[in-house]
Amino acid sequence: MIEIIFPDGNKKTFEQGITALQIAENISNQLAKKVLSAQLNGKTIELNEPLYEGGQIKFFTWDDDAGKRAFWHSSAHLLAQAILDFYPKAKLTIGPPIENGFYYDIDFGEEDFGESDFEKIEKQILRRAQEKAEFKMRKVSKTDALAFYKDNPYKTELIENLEDGSITFCDHSDFTDLCRGGHIPNTGLVKAVKILNAAGAYWRGNEKNKQLTRVYGISFPKQSMLDEYLQKLEEAKKRDHRKLGAELELFAFSQRVGKGLPLWLPKGAALRERLVKFLQDAQKKAGYLQVITPHIGHKDLYVCSGHYAKYGKDSFQPITTPEEGEEFLLKPMNCPHHCEIYKVKPRSYKDLPLRLAEFGTVYRYEQSGELHGLTRVRGFTQDDAHIFCTADQLKDEFKKVIDLVLYIFKALDFNDYKAQISLRDPENPDKYIGSEENWKKAEHAIIEAAAEKGLPTIMEYGEAAFYGPKLDFMVKDALGRMWQLGTIQVDYNLPERFELEYKGADNQMHRPVMIHRAPFGSLERFVAVLLEHCAGNFPIWLTPEQVRILPVSEKYHNYASQVLQQLEAHNIRASIDERNEKIGRKIRDAEVAKVPYMAIAGEIEQEQNNLNIRKHGGYNLGPMDVITFVQYIEEEIKKLIPEFNN
Amino acid sequence: MIEIIFPDGNKKTFEQGITALQIAENISNQLAKKVLSAQLNGKTIELNEPLYEGGQIKFFTWDDDAGKRAFWHSSAHLLAQAILDFYPKAKLTIGPPIENGFYYDIDFGEEDFGESDFEKIEKQILRRAQEKAEFKMRKVSKTDALAFYKDNPYKTELIENLEDGSITFCDHSDFTDLCRGGHIPNTGLVKAVKILNAAGAYWRGNEKNKQLTRVYGISFPKQSMLDEYLQKLEEAKKRDHRKLGAELELFAFSQRVGKGLPLWLPKGAALRERLVKFLQDAQKKAGYLQVITPHIGHKDLYVCSGHYAKYGKDSFQPITTPEEGEEFLLKPMNCPHHCEIYKVKPRSYKDLPLRLAEFGTVYRYEQSGELHGLTRVRGFTQDDAHIFCTADQLKDEFKKVIDLVLYIFKALDFNDYKAQISLRDPENPDKYIGSEENWKKAEHAIIEAAAEKGLPTIMEYGEAAFYGPKLDFMVKDALGRMWQLGTIQVDYNLPERFELEYKGADNQMHRPVMIHRAPFGSLERFVAVLLEHCAGNFPIWLTPEQVRILPVSEKYHNYASQVLQQLEAHNIRASIDERNEKIGRKIRDAEVAKVPYMAIAGEIEQEQNNLNIRKHGGYNLGPMDVITFVQYIEEEIKKLIPEFNN
Repeated sequence: MIEIIFPDGNKKTFEQGITALQIAENISNQLAKKVLSAQLNGKTIELNEPLYEGGQIKFFTWDDDAGKRAFWHSSAHLLAQAILDFYPKAKLTIGPPIENGFYYDIDFGEEDFGESDFEKIEKQILRRAQEKAEFKMRKVSKTDALAFYKDNPYKTELIENLEDGSITFCDHSDFTDLCRGGHIPNTGLVKAVKILNAAGAYWRGNEKNKQLTRVYGISFPKQSMLDEYLQKLEEAKKRDHRKLGAELELFAFSQRVGKGLPLWLPKGAALRERLVKFLQDAQKKAGYLQVITPHIGHKDLYVCSGHYAKYGKDSFQPITTPEEGEEFLLKPMNCPHHCEIYKVKPRSYKDLPLRLAEFGTVYRYEQSGELHGLTRVRGFTQDDAHIFCTADQLKDEFKKVIDLVLYIFKALDFNDYKAQISLRDPENPDKYIGSEENWKKAEHAIIEAAAEKGLPTIMEYGEAAFYGPKLDFMVKDALGRMWQLGTIQVDYNLPERFELEYKGADNQMHRPVMIHRAPFGSLERFVAVLLEHCAGNFPIWLTPEQVRILPVSEKYHNYASQVLQQLEAHNIRASIDERNEKIGRKIRDAEVAKVPYMAIAGEIEQEQNNLNIRKHGGYNLGPMDVITFVQYIEEEIKKLIPEFNN
Repeated sequence: MIEIIFPDGNKKTFEQGITALQIAENISNQLAKKVLSAQLNGKTIELNEPLYEGGQIKFFTWDDDAGKRAFWHSSAHLLAQAILDFYPKAKLTIGPPIENGFYYDIDFGEEDFGESDFEKIEKQILRRAQEKAEFKMRKVSKTDALAFYKDNPYKTELIENLEDGSITFCDHSDFTDLCRGGHIPNTGLVKAVKILNAAGAYWRGNEKNKQLTRVYGISFPKQSMLDEYLQKLEEAKKRDHRKLGAELELFAFSQRVGKGLPLWLPKGAALRERLVKFLQDAQKKAGYLQVITPHIGHKDLYVCSGHYAKYGKDSFQPITTPEEGEEFLLKPMNCPHHCEIYKVKPRSYKDLPLRLAEFGTVYRYEQSGELHGLTRVRGFTQDDAHIFCTADQLKDEFKKVIDLVLYIFKALDFNDYKAQISLRDPENPDKYIGSEENWKKAEHAIIEAAAEKGLPTIMEYGEAAFYGPKLDFMVKDALGRMWQLGTIQVDYNLPERFELEYKGADNQMHRPVMIHRAPFGSLERFVAVLLEHCAGNFPIWLTPEQVRILPVSEKYHNYASQVLQQLEAHNIRASIDERNEKIGRKIRDAEVAKVPYMAIAGEIEQEQNNLNIRKHGGYNLGPMDVITFVQYIEEEIKKLIPEFNN
């Protein structure tokens, strides 16, 4: 008999040779139907493998990453099988599950494989799946494995790197693959599949090797889930910030300037400036002082801060000077510069909290393959600030920063968010710098501040940085994707390294605490997330073109110009569509350009000295005179960005 | 007989052996009294040297740089003589004239020389000067020269590096020095002298050599001129932007961040932001589009622009990446980035002029010895813009830029300026790129634009860059010093190198012309010049603290707070002096802090619900209620910065 311990701590004994699937059945038929993968004592096992020892068991379903991984791994076997059904000479290489679906790298030899072949493969996968074949693992000797793959140089290479005795094959139906295991009970669970793409990929990622075809697919236990996934994929493609950024002429990249270094085009730069001004105004009210520091710093500065020791080798390398041999670094963070500003003069407790803010552009090296639009760049502008305060002021400062972050989220229509609080690992107290008392103070301050502000919160023990606990804001976008945006981080390290001090009310010198905080995180990444969240339909206060005036014909161009002047006098960003086009076409184009308001100017409107107002998305607001329209827009703006009070 | 040609083209013959001074006497006694130096055929000669050949002669007086140079060179001889009178063992090294005065580097051996010794040396110089000794040059053989200086290792080293036959000594009175010539007629012309400083300086500027004492002095032909100079020096010291910048907490430097890399403190950053916003608003009205580009660029970008070939070696060296071996450069100029933005999409003649503006921070290596406050830095922010236009649009664009620059000068109280136009060297037409026709067009455009705008103008032939003519604004500050501020530069080179194009009305592709322009030049340098010009008394719209409310006693703090709220509601930057000090002290401190308006709040004011307004400098404006006061300030601002129309 073997003893099985369940995640809730319950224990049960079973006969040796029982399978995990049978154990699941023993618990409930419900679970047995849903289970996709299992672990025994932390190791992934096959659900249909006889068990000869007991221990802690875990079951995974579609709701778990491990469940999806087993599902997609198994689907990769089906994909390979289906491909061999049509292309018996194709040579298989590797086929892992990925974040969304799976792929298989295949050498098709002389044969073509492309989009027109996807459908027949999808059909064949489903036909094969319906066989409800079980996946069965078996050990194979190195000699037998090499013999089996004697015509496949890729598998041969893989096997040659494996130890004899550790090699396993997986069989299902008439298909066999070199495999380490981790499958669903049988192929029949795969009810829907889509081949998404076929792209070139070098064997082992090395461009000196042969180019293979990487066939990407995704599969689901239900057709409706696939439908939903494809719809989201379609929507995400439409919202891809790289596509929208180009269409709306917000930003561009130039190979000659350098990969990952965005050029902000006029409309994007103006939008970014509005974001900056919006936050600057709120920060001014919240008592922040703006500073400006250089984009480079002497190497000594980062040696002092510890950044050089930690990141120096993997970063942009030092800039030397021609004669004096000094070494400078591109600034990867603004904090060391702000510490030096703190040190410009002696500080007293009366100066605290001192809140130094900077829209500081920093540069960090990323491999070119990792770069992605504005979300992963080599240069970005942080909406950075450092609050120097006493330990007793921490909680209040956290509450103020939370207010500021929520004010921003509201203004930008992010209504679904939670806070993740990263605390010490209680089992490793030595990993952290700063006194026990200070850590307790800081952790309590964050937890209480989040609670008092009513933030939905997750606590993560052991996730704190070695120099202090932090709070991250996780935001759900319109497609349900989670993004980590604002951060508030306590730091006991830099004040120590820079020997920051203030004279207390007791006339003694004390060390301040530092808070790093960035509500947007980086302007680049934030604009990318915002673009994908709102699909380019920016909030009215932020959007480049707030109103497009659509004269019905050339006769009304004069009237339209008068309206434009009035709108501009009220700081409304407007333009006139003076093209010689029908009004229906002008409306359609304004919709496509994502202009929030269209003001139609025709005969009746000119006579009645008003405008016929349409809102983006096809809502008709009816006639309004210019002043009423301006007030309407101003009200809409105020709803999103009321005066900031802190 | 020799023939002498005068600068006006007149010719006259004289007997061989006549001196330049005698020729001057021959022209007029007036000239003979004023002449300080002369050139024959472009070579400096001694005024009392017999001439044996004719040629073109030029005389220099105090009004010429060459005249001052001879005066101060001769004064350096007097300084050395006076020092030897007191310190016979002192060893002379070198003693050149400089921009203002002269110095002599001296090895005083065991003896001290410091400020307390200055007066006796000044007196001795004047005593020696009254001997009215002539300076007389004589040739010396290398052997004799070395023998003369056998106890002076410095002069010995200098002589060893000279060719035998080329060595000359200068005698006056009982003093002799190794010297190449260029003196005033006699020592009697030196009527006033001041030793300004004595500082350490290494022999030959190399810190491995012995440290000498550099004695700085200045001399004049009249005592009143020295008095005036010292007064200006005193005033300039008070206005030194480094001193004012620290006192007003505008900016600071940190050795750890790096020399020449300013940190803008809160008050300075806010002031700079106001300057930026002021120019941005005007530029927006003038049709500029703001862009934002990174502070680094791929080396290829600067290879393409030609900057790498020209400046690469003497600049901050390339930044490499750890794995991919790419090379980036700190951006020394914004223009290549803007060319890449031009190329983001195809351009048509309808898009021109395209005016791309950026407050772009650039980094240029300067030797640490050359750095000076904000005027000479290693990182600075240009108020840069590039106008891409057709050759026909050049004149109009120049006129518009001139309007913008003059608008700025007025707003900042620079009322004395002229334009310097740099044109081709007519004798070297091959030095320049771009067609003859385009150059003519551009030069005429600049000259006409300046004339039509009524600018006082100097033309400098041969001063144009190889890629186009330019116009520089020279501004006189309150101390009468000239500063080169704004620049407007035509460029035919970069459009060529970046292959910029637009589709003309003729459907053919054409190359645009580029104008570089920066009205402030750099924000750093501009703020420095402005600080010294206004001695920290910034124009009302720009100054950090516009109003200080001075409650007469604590009883009026509440009333003062109400006033502050009202002022802030009208965007007036104000504060309250709540210290427990007498009102007289508060006024004095506000004067020292250069606050333009003081609003006194006492019993009468609270009763009458008004304020007693004092203007900086001791002017009493009498009682005003808050609204009247706000309107008064707004009017003052409007006088300096009316709405910009372009």
